[in-house]
Amino acid sequence: MSATTRRHLPHGQEDAYLKAYLSGYADGEGCFCVSFNRSKRHRFGWEIRPSFSVSQNDERSQVLELFRSTLGCGTIRPDRSDRTLKYETRSVSDLVTRVLPLFAQHPLRSSKQRDFEKFAEIVQLMHESKHLQPDGFARIVELSLEVNSSGAKRFPRRAIVLPQMNA
Amino acid sequence: MSATTRRHLPHGQEDAYLKAYLSGYADGEGCFCVSFNRSKRHRFGWEIRPSFSVSQNDERSQVLELFRSTLGCGTIRPDRSDRTLKYETRSVSDLVTRVLPLFAQHPLRSSKQRDFEKFAEIVQLMHESKHLQPDGFARIVELSLEVNSSGAKRFPRRAIVLPQMNA
Repeated sequence: MSATTRRHLPHGQEDAYLKAYLSGYADGEGCFCVSFNRSKRHRFGWEIRPSFSVSQNDERSQVLELFRSTLGCGTIRPDRSDRTLKYETRSVSDLVTRVLPLFAQHPLRSSKQRDFEKFAEIVQLMHESKHLQPDGFARIVELSLEVNSSGAKRFPRRAIVLPQMNA
Repeated sequence: MSATTRRHLPHGQEDAYLKAYLSGYADGEGCFCVSFNRSKRHRFGWEIRPSFSVSQNDERSQVLELFRSTLGCGTIRPDRSDRTLKYETRSVSDLVTRVLPLFAQHPLRSSKQRDFEKFAEIVQLMHESKHLQPDGFARIVELSLEVNSSGAKRFPRRAIVLPQMNA
């Protein structure tokens, strides 16, 4: 029944429904994360790593393939922490040109939208190389404190990162 | 930015995007369940209880309100098993007229769609009162074995229900 309904949709419409569906899926299962790793090769001694990811059991990994094909970026790999597969995009360029536009067009409808907005600002600052300047770096640290609060243990707090900024 | 894009959408379009989003959310977080409870008041000695439910942390319960308002049925209550809120629709009539059409129009895109199809057949059989006849009841038991397999402990298997059918 549904197949019949959908067969007559113009391609653009079907594409928009798919993106709206992926927004809903990501609102439940997606993660907008920013991690900081100690690095001598990076400005101020920290590598900033934003990522958009979605995890799923192996047996239901079809949706991860949909994220990859629809966004046209990212990888799917086994997640080391458990027995799931994880779709992930880390490239700042892909995040700016592919991931952010999807959620701008089809916003999350839970309070996770606030996380996304902070994440989007961080990614945009990095895209403009603002993270290479003290003000921009500090702003990213501030914003990151409000993103993915459930995973806060994974990145150091302002008290750790900012005093350790090595210019 | 997104608000501007969306403001110009016709109402029907916005409604369709919302439904596609809810389909995606349900594909990740929703549950199509069928439980059997011993009952002297019900035919064959078993009450069959199908339900569609979505759980979420209290702080992100906005989406549960969207399910209730969009579907126009169901309740939101604290889930006894943990600290989440749960949206749930149990009424067979509401399931047939409100829940099934949403997922017929915007199908799940993971293998959970197979669970949904079995669930839809069960609900339809009940709507036609087929569960009051031995053949229909047995068919529902068979179908239910394939629905919500992760929650299989919650309802008895064929070996338990069928021999205990009290006409």
